[in-house]
Amino acid sequence: MKELTLVKIGGNLIDDESKLSASLEAFAKIEGAKLLVHGGGKLATDMAKQLGISSPMIDGRRITNAETLKVVSMVYAGWINKKIVAGLQALNQQAIGLCGADDNLILAEKRQHASIDYGYVGDVLEVNTEALATYIEQDKVLVLSAITHDGKGQLLNTNADTVATELAIALSQQYQVKLIYSFEKPGVLINPEDDMSFLKRLDMNLYQEMKENGSINKGMLPKAENAFRAFDKGVQVIIGDLLILAKDECCGTQLIECS
Amino acid sequence: MKELTLVKIGGNLIDDESKLSASLEAFAKIEGAKLLVHGGGKLATDMAKQLGISSPMIDGRRITNAETLKVVSMVYAGWINKKIVAGLQALNQQAIGLCGADDNLILAEKRQHASIDYGYVGDVLEVNTEALATYIEQDKVLVLSAITHDGKGQLLNTNADTVATELAIALSQQYQVKLIYSFEKPGVLINPEDDMSFLKRLDMNLYQEMKENGSINKGMLPKAENAFRAFDKGVQVIIGDLLILAKDECCGTQLIECS
Repeated sequence: MKELTLVKIGGNLIDDESKLSASLEAFAKIEGAKLLVHGGGKLATDMAKQLGISSPMIDGRRITNAETLKVVSMVYAGWINKKIVAGLQALNQQAIGLCGADDNLILAEKRQHASIDYGYVGDVLEVNTEALATYIEQDKVLVLSAITHDGKGQLLNTNADTVATELAIALSQQYQVKLIYSFEKPGVLINPEDDMSFLKRLDMNLYQEMKENGSINKGMLPKAENAFRAFDKGVQVIIGDLLILAKDECCGTQLIECS
Repeated sequence: MKELTLVKIGGNLIDDESKLSASLEAFAKIEGAKLLVHGGGKLATDMAKQLGISSPMIDGRRITNAETLKVVSMVYAGWINKKIVAGLQALNQQAIGLCGADDNLILAEKRQHASIDYGYVGDVLEVNTEALATYIEQDKVLVLSAITHDGKGQLLNTNADTVATELAIALSQQYQVKLIYSFEKPGVLINPEDDMSFLKRLDMNLYQEMKENGSINKGMLPKAENAFRAFDKGVQVIIGDLLILAKDECCGTQLIECS
């Protein structure tokens, strides 16, 4: 099977202009088929604040009312997505910036929850692997924001880690997928205060243990859950910082089978 | 040659939710290959105002400083573009929303002007007809915002009528292009106060005459200049309201050769 590298970037890799540009250079150097999924960093929160829109978070997920949806669509699918595309084009990458509504790439449904109304938050129903493969086979480099749609005309806001995970799982039927969750830390840390304490390898047993004794950073939990979900479906998963990984492939936390 | 209908929508067709949805329905009913170019209506101006950003206009062209570029990228390439795509997908159209940076579709350069600094305004240098044709031949329906790029990583703001014109001219080498500039009037009016006074046909002589005696609406001038430029290159051009044209093809102002 052909290899495909799927990189998810988020957090301060996006907020910081020079880090974003370095990340794009690192991404451009990745050989073979590849795909970039990006989050929105703090820009959407800042923009919402500037516009006087409140967008509360529950369990790391943004509550998305109509006004917030407009802001995240603008910031993610507009500004960040197009800035990344222009940056990659300048690096001779055949970049195309899309969201889940484009070409019906990611069909989602408004989140159903017994007690919390998440608003326009979308849970992924189906990934259009046929359409994705068409771009990949044409050597195009897709840059995907995490805006999805319900197929009935409604845009939805989906967590970018989840989008990366769902894409990796769906594409793993056709490609040997390597999924890199890139963020501001070199990997999963044993001691959240010490960046050098990152694990080289992480299996489910150790993860459960760290979760139970509270040594894993709370913000890492949804990312790790996503990561293990992809790993369980046969995706090679690395959690780390793309900028460090570009220099030293051995850095980052690689998910492994329990021994 | 295969026919291709290129529709440009703007103005209050975009600002007004129900008119936008009716326009998309009318567009969806157009048979054969087609492509949609959209402007931003008043949304970008409103958003800039909300954010306290001033964006002056000179000759109907927005002066685009760094902050304004961010706003137009967000509003045009993000919110409006994706809302249109989701709306068209709901009408079973294989819509894909792109800007000129995506797939290097529209290469532009920062406007050079002796006395006025237009900021990040882009004049079109080259249209990637090969890439456009690839989508068209796959029966995809491209939805294009008028954000372009300079190939060196800089996004640029380009007038949407101009983008539609340049695309129509470039694609006319491969397709028999029909270009509809859709706006809030049924066509070019003899009396700006009377919507029923629209011309069914307009040639260059009459246009020059109207321009000289000042009977043509000033706001129509850049659109008409664009329209005649496309017409001179063999593009079939209609200026009118897509919603009226959908009901009666004979409405709208068709450009014709001087008799």
